[in-house]
Amino acid sequence: TSHPGFEALDCDSVKSYVAARPALAKHVGPPDGRDSWTVEEVGDGNINFVYILEGPAGALCVKQALPFVRVVGESWPLTQDRVRIEAEALAAEATHCPQHVPALYSYDARMCVIAMQYLALPHIIVRKGLIEGRIYPLLAPHLAAFLAGTLFHTSLLALPSDEFRSNIARFTNVDMCRLTEQVIFTDPYHPAQHNWHTTPQLDGDVAALRADVAARVAASQLKAKFTQQHQALLHGDLHTGSIMATGSTTYVIDPEFAYYGPMAFDVAKILANLLLAFFSVDGHASAADPRSEQRRWLLACVRELWGGFAARFTQLWDEHGHKGDVCAAELFHGSSREGTAARQEAQGQFLAELWRDAVGFMGAVMVRRIVGIAHVADMESIADDNVRAVCERRALCFGRKLLVQGSGVASAEQLTEEAEAERADGQQPCFPL
Amino acid sequence: TSHPGFEALDCDSVKSYVAARPALAKHVGPPDGRDSWTVEEVGDGNINFVYILEGPAGALCVKQALPFVRVVGESWPLTQDRVRIEAEALAAEATHCPQHVPALYSYDARMCVIAMQYLALPHIIVRKGLIEGRIYPLLAPHLAAFLAGTLFHTSLLALPSDEFRSNIARFTNVDMCRLTEQVIFTDPYHPAQHNWHTTPQLDGDVAALRADVAARVAASQLKAKFTQQHQALLHGDLHTGSIMATGSTTYVIDPEFAYYGPMAFDVAKILANLLLAFFSVDGHASAADPRSEQRRWLLACVRELWGGFAARFTQLWDEHGHKGDVCAAELFHGSSREGTAARQEAQGQFLAELWRDAVGFMGAVMVRRIVGIAHVADMESIADDNVRAVCERRALCFGRKLLVQGSGVASAEQLTEEAEAERADGQQPCFPL
Ligand SMILES: Nc1ncnc2c1ncn2[C@@H]1O[C@H](COP(=O)(O)OP(=O)(O)O)[C@@H](O)[C@H]1O
Ligand SMILES: Nc1ncnc2c1ncn2[C@@H]1O[C@H](COP(=O)(O)OP(=O)(O)O)[C@@H](O)[C@H]1O
Ligand SMILES: [Mg+2]
Ligand SMILES: [Mg+2]
Ligand SMILES: [Mg+2]
Ligand SMILES: [Mg+2]
Ligand SMILES: [Mg+2]
Repeated sequence: TSHPGFEALDCDSVKSYVAARPALAKHVGPPDGRDSWTVEEVGDGNINFVYILEGPAGALCVKQALPFVRVVGESWPLTQDRVRIEAEALAAEATHCPQHVPALYSYDARMCVIAMQYLALPHIIVRKGLIEGRIYPLLAPHLAAFLAGTLFHTSLLALPSDEFRSNIARFTNVDMCRLTEQVIFTDPYHPAQHNWHTTPQLDGDVAALRADVAARVAASQLKAKFTQQHQALLHGDLHTGSIMATGSTTYVIDPEFAYYGPMAFDVAKILANLLLAFFSVDGHASAADPRSEQRRWLLACVRELWGGFAARFTQLWDEHGHKGDVCAAELFHGSSREGTAARQEAQGQFLAELWRDAVGFMGAVMVRRIVGIAHVADMESIADDNVRAVCERRALCFGRKLLVQGSGVASAEQLTEEAEAERADGQQPCFPL
Repeated sequence: TSHPGFEALDCDSVKSYVAARPALAKHVGPPDGRDSWTVEEVGDGNINFVYILEGPAGALCVKQALPFVRVVGESWPLTQDRVRIEAEALAAEATHCPQHVPALYSYDARMCVIAMQYLALPHIIVRKGLIEGRIYPLLAPHLAAFLAGTLFHTSLLALPSDEFRSNIARFTNVDMCRLTEQVIFTDPYHPAQHNWHTTPQLDGDVAALRADVAARVAASQLKAKFTQQHQALLHGDLHTGSIMATGSTTYVIDPEFAYYGPMAFDVAKILANLLLAFFSVDGHASAADPRSEQRRWLLACVRELWGGFAARFTQLWDEHGHKGDVCAAELFHGSSREGTAARQEAQGQFLAELWRDAVGFMGAVMVRRIVGIAHVADMESIADDNVRAVCERRALCFGRKLLVQGSGVASAEQLTEEAEAERADGQQPCFPL
């Protein structure tokens, strides 16, 4: 099932791999000095192997995909075409937003290897920073720019429909999408094999979720939207574990789930992960370190991210919307009063619908991180089961509410107010039992 | 720009073409008797050439695509890949609904030729029958079955997502979709080159339409849906000119615009054409032949078509929905009460959304047939300009209303009531001038 000529690398062979390729070796050091290079496998993700090579000239990041899911093993095969997708997506993102993605140095189809810019310390994964209590003052504006740039410029608002349709074909990512469909939109709602939750504390909540008709229906509608609405090139896995940042820089990594899907999904995934972080803060707080500033900032970050995204997206539309086929230049970009009025009306309706869909997707993403196969370290790192269960229950209740009553949450302000309220009174099981 | 080895046929060479192919010749007669065969070119469509061959054994229909639009000529090039699409769509439709499509005998990629079952007289094009004053008592149930069968079985309600996604790729029909995007969703709303209308009678109405911000916005939203929602294999051009029928049989022909798009588009295109026929009836009526039965029947047909479609679609979902990935079997098709309740809830919401989208698409289709490049014979065959203008104005007003206030029309009953009302009072220009 693996590519012909494919070989799995290890910390030794990855050195030879790089040393044999001058365009890569130059980032590390002269190949004949490779004995002095250090190599570390840092893949803390669930899926792939990531090597960091360091030498006299600097450092390099090498990522390899094996033909299966790393944490599960050969029993869960997974297409290696995901590396091609990741390479093409990194390249596409770099044209629209170079300051927020690592530079791609090479893609090797035979070996399923990407070599890319090493993001040096103090860059760390944002999820880790959040668990440590950090605040990222520029995270919201940077992610707003990343999302607006990548989503706008790959959509039919910016592209003619022939180019748009050929992009859809190029970014067809069947297996990775199927994985998302299963783990986000299906399995959390029935007792699937790999599901787990904090037990016995959440047993009742989970049972109630699995009996909840409205939640099932909403999840299946979102799944249909995820699968059928081909609107823009998504990152596809934009959680806080796919972002490396410092106080002043932000990089988005790991777009192996990229495909043409609904913009709302990318927007929602990152907002949902910020909300999960918010609900986890009480589990990390102590008298000495009450973390109230971080908790307030997380909600501000949600508002700012959405607000910044909406503003930047609208600006790109004003400036470049005449290039795309959805809002034909003749109708929306002339100097006529009607053209401008039509564009503003279309923008308002577009963003309202995007928000509505995003609220639903946020709910689904939150729910699955509490009761599905893959949980978040923000919660898992809370050692005390009872404390964690309280945080998780709030997140689960809030997620379920967004999922089912999504369109009742009309703005980012209302969203964060309701999250505050959930935290204040969310000690009880959230479903009627 | 044409395929290598391609040659345009004519009434002579099409005989040799068929005579050289035993699998085709057998439908006409022994090849050595071909001098006695008759050939007629019957392509009354705008785009392709269609030959009917008749001989001692029977008859055969041969359709050929040239690398341009027939009515315009070489100055409007058009992909010949449309014949491949037509052949694959005919085959797909035949698996789901064999009784309502002509049998496909062969597809010749080099010559861009399809040979298919000849639909003998008394089969005629439904649009012609309607202009003559006919009623088709089985048209609604037959089209309901065709639409429910083809749309359901090619959707993610019936297919796993990997097969679904590979279908989308196979039915990528970029150029034909671009044509639709332009002639239905863009050009009617600005003074595009090939637009025309009954002048001077409708000048004011057309000017008002072109100043109408809400109409532009609605049309661009529908265009986005047309281009981005990949929901099922559509026929793509399902008007009354793509249907051949008798009082007891109904065949859908000409799926060269087939692609994966929103189900609502197919449903809307046929309903809109029935409504256009309805508004044209007064132009064909006379004291001797008031056509009031036909007029009433046309609205009944609209209601019956939608009702029959919704019922049959729901039944297919009940019976086959467990095969698809949208409503996972584990959640929607178990014997549990929740599973059944969830499915019924999902079906209700699905059909409500489909109807809402269909109302908007109907509006766009009606508008473009009055003010765009391609009009309908139902109206064009009304000789008196003033009489035709009255009929057209009603259709234009009604179409514009559906386009802009679509979601206010909650049911097929309400739709047909409002059409009646428009006919009763629709003598005035419909837009504020
Ligand atoms: N360009 C990079 N620079 C530095 N570290 C990186 C880089 N890319 C990945 N990493 C590290 O490797 C880890 C796993 O990478 P990731 O691309 O997320 O793999 P996976 O697909 O398995 O989730 C990241 O969490 C991060 O710590
Ligand atoms: N299978 C058939 N049997 C009999 N007549 C047919 C058949 N297919 C097409 N025709 C006739 O040829 C005309 C044009 O065919 P159509 O497929 O609609 O071509 P176009 O793509 O140019 O619109 C139809 O209106 C109909 O009169
Ligand atoms: Mg990762
Ligand atoms: Mg990954
Ligand atoms: Mg035709
Ligand atoms: Mg045709
Ligand atoms: Mg009126």
